[in-house]
Amino acid sequence: MKAADLAENSLTRGCMNIKPYGFALWENTQRALDDKIKEVGVQNAYFPVLIPLSLIAKEADHIDGFATECAVVTHHRLSKNAEGKLAPDPDSELTEPYVVRPTSETIIGESVKNWIQSYRDLPLKLNQWGNVFRWEMRTRVFLRTAEFLWQEGHNVFETADEAREDMKKMLDIYADILENWMAIPVIKGYKTEDEKFPGAVETMTVEAMMQDGKALQSGTSHFLGQTFSKSADIKFQSRDGNIEHAWTTSWGLSTRSIGGLIMTHGDDDGLKVPPKIAQIQVIIIPFLKGDNDDSIVDYCKTLKQNLKSQGVRADVDMRELRAGDKTWDWVKKGVPIRVEVGGREMDAGQVTVTRRDLGKESKTTMSVDEFVAQAQSTLDDIQSNMFETAKKSVMDRIHDVDAIDAARTFFAGNGNGFVRMDKTLWGTNEFNALCDEFSLSPRCIPLDTPDKVIVGKSY
Amino acid sequence: MKAADLAENSLTRGCMNIKPYGFALWENTQRALDDKIKEVGVQNAYFPVLIPLSLIAKEADHIDGFATECAVVTHHRLSKNAEGKLAPDPDSELTEPYVVRPTSETIIGESVKNWIQSYRDLPLKLNQWGNVFRWEMRTRVFLRTAEFLWQEGHNVFETADEAREDMKKMLDIYADILENWMAIPVIKGYKTEDEKFPGAVETMTVEAMMQDGKALQSGTSHFLGQTFSKSADIKFQSRDGNIEHAWTTSWGLSTRSIGGLIMTHGDDDGLKVPPKIAQIQVIIIPFLKGDNDDSIVDYCKTLKQNLKSQGVRADVDMRELRAGDKTWDWVKKGVPIRVEVGGREMDAGQVTVTRRDLGKESKTTMSVDEFVAQAQSTLDDIQSNMFETAKKSVMDRIHDVDAIDAARTFFAGNGNGFVRMDKTLWGTNEFNALCDEFSLSPRCIPLDTPDKVIVGKSY
Repeated sequence: MKAADLAENSLTRGCMNIKPYGFALWENTQRALDDKIKEVGVQNAYFPVLIPLSLIAKEADHIDGFATECAVVTHHRLSKNAEGKLAPDPDSELTEPYVVRPTSETIIGESVKNWIQSYRDLPLKLNQWGNVFRWEMRTRVFLRTAEFLWQEGHNVFETADEAREDMKKMLDIYADILENWMAIPVIKGYKTEDEKFPGAVETMTVEAMMQDGKALQSGTSHFLGQTFSKSADIKFQSRDGNIEHAWTTSWGLSTRSIGGLIMTHGDDDGLKVPPKIAQIQVIIIPFLKGDNDDSIVDYCKTLKQNLKSQGVRADVDMRELRAGDKTWDWVKKGVPIRVEVGGREMDAGQVTVTRRDLGKESKTTMSVDEFVAQAQSTLDDIQSNMFETAKKSVMDRIHDVDAIDAARTFFAGNGNGFVRMDKTLWGTNEFNALCDEFSLSPRCIPLDTPDKVIVGKSY
Repeated sequence: MKAADLAENSLTRGCMNIKPYGFALWENTQRALDDKIKEVGVQNAYFPVLIPLSLIAKEADHIDGFATECAVVTHHRLSKNAEGKLAPDPDSELTEPYVVRPTSETIIGESVKNWIQSYRDLPLKLNQWGNVFRWEMRTRVFLRTAEFLWQEGHNVFETADEAREDMKKMLDIYADILENWMAIPVIKGYKTEDEKFPGAVETMTVEAMMQDGKALQSGTSHFLGQTFSKSADIKFQSRDGNIEHAWTTSWGLSTRSIGGLIMTHGDDDGLKVPPKIAQIQVIIIPFLKGDNDDSIVDYCKTLKQNLKSQGVRADVDMRELRAGDKTWDWVKKGVPIRVEVGGREMDAGQVTVTRRDLGKESKTTMSVDEFVAQAQSTLDDIQSNMFETAKKSVMDRIHDVDAIDAARTFFAGNGNGFVRMDKTLWGTNEFNALCDEFSLSPRCIPLDTPDKVIVGKSY
């Protein structure tokens, strides 16, 4: 996190400063996800960050899930107090407090009910990119922060079937982004009853497994039934002329996924960034020794332009640093391909190329033309190699067990990974005791083995 | 606002719900501005939405400017009170309150001081896209809302000269976006002493004039000198080995600019959207009468594809509405080009085309191939026509006056527009009395007439 210059703890308790190199990972993820959700007819919109307390109070399950961890706005002015210190002005106390949004089902539901008259206005598919705040006790940069960035989708349908299909469709988009862009393998499945989103009828999840064997819930999609349409009174005139409550979904993916990326792909040398979301895909490092420096720099800049014209995001590192320090900096930052150019390479029309995913054993010197011609396919190869490597690592650490005792043996032996067991074991006293003993939780009921439940530690 | 389905007042006091069609205008503006600021080496980053009170309290001028209008977070939990109602939990009162950011100079300054050791780390150019909150008393959708979306840039330099140049460069980028993308003519200039940003040494502004003659401050760029680098202690080792305080700028453009767009280009029939930021540049409306309907729809879809392959954002309106109602809807929404296709057009290989900027007099029937071939250049023409029309209207309403009395005569006669007068009149008793009498303010000292000051009413 620190060596790759991604983010840091902020002066605000439990929050993070996302530094430019880390933010670029999120921006590239955002761009890809935004394109995909627009392709399925979702439109972006924006609703207030402060939610009136009365709206939050309307939906009982929702309160239980979020009320204990909110930032509450009670005053609207600061002024100097008797000691001359700046403080909330007592005269500015609000009649009704506001909550900094922990999620926006309530305020979006209460607003869009006025946008919907009949079935012709449905489906209504909205998404909001923004920040949310939950007063978390134990925080960790990217993985669990009080404030985080995310998108929250809120879709409204005529029928339960359409809404359920939508929940699945949005989950598939998350799996696509996580697997094919961030190279993070995920297990798609349903949350068990105790792990559902507060107010949801069904919650689907994409669960990733970090290198330490812990799970990271990387995106969720909820079928909310009529929970919020009833509490907010979202009604429409149906095709046969009746007035009915609508069916809604919500779905979110956050900056947590960047934590997942780091902990899926990092190694002892630092970060590895999948090419598709890398800000810099190829970094060119000139090795300057005092003679021919200008020519070497020109050679590097020409190479950068040639790569750019192939659609490759390339840059030349012109910082006032030793070339060796630059190399090490880009190793830590996980740039997919490093290119070194010294006088010898230049004279021979060559470059020395190292792949971050394969490490220094992959270092080869080749003709610059050959490198440029192959750059895009090399990046594609890095992308799929990173995914396949991570996928194998996850698959190898899912352990089938036929009883609670076998699971206990696994975790007691500091087993790294998940156990997969018969779904009927879920919720038994034995199961609950196992979870308590090792701080485990049911991660999901996988789509591909619906009679099983996956259990593990989690972030 | 309502008929074009752009935005509405929200359930949160003074805030707005930005609806999809309005949000798309902001997204397209954002995309263009983001590209331009990245071209000059600015990187995006993210800092917390809640700012500890002690940071806000550090810079005295800044407090005076913002402290009276903040949302203050004082508790971190809700719980049920004695009457069973959800309320801030008294046990969760914070030792130090937080303020929902009204702007981020303080928290960004206090954070980035740790990112800077020497001149090698400068310039540091950061931008944040996000939401801010100011407790405004009189609010109006887009023009003045308690919460608004914006970007805030925060750049740090070695020297005062570089920082001053940067202030000008970022203002030029705002003028470019406003004039060449949003087709809003602006006057570039310096704010007078009394209108500067709290804590700034110099504030530059791009001022627009709405059709009612009122000014809209549409973007500002500040040379902050060492105000914030001294209060936050942002220091660096200079080229000659001394430890010095850095020089900073900040610059922002917000969703207010969308208000400016509406009030610059709207007419009695609704909105007019400049093609460059239009979500839909060409809307195709099939006129279906029960025979040949499928063929007409196919003809429209083929046209849409042909336009798309020319890079034109086109759509076919397939809603269950009467064609006339669709036409009227898109007039109100200000789509640059409307295309009507009925059986007669289809049989003749034609389309009927109307430009929103020129109105129904521009309605012509032409061959579909000719239309597709010319579509992009027609959009360019609409873009420049909208700008030139607005520019002429603004220029015609800037009135040179040689004395305060002449200005009084103008405003007493309900004059629509600005007056331009000798700069030395600014700050005199007569000047102040004039401003009080007609609710005027000095808008700027224009770059092109630096011995003058422009005065007007404003939003």
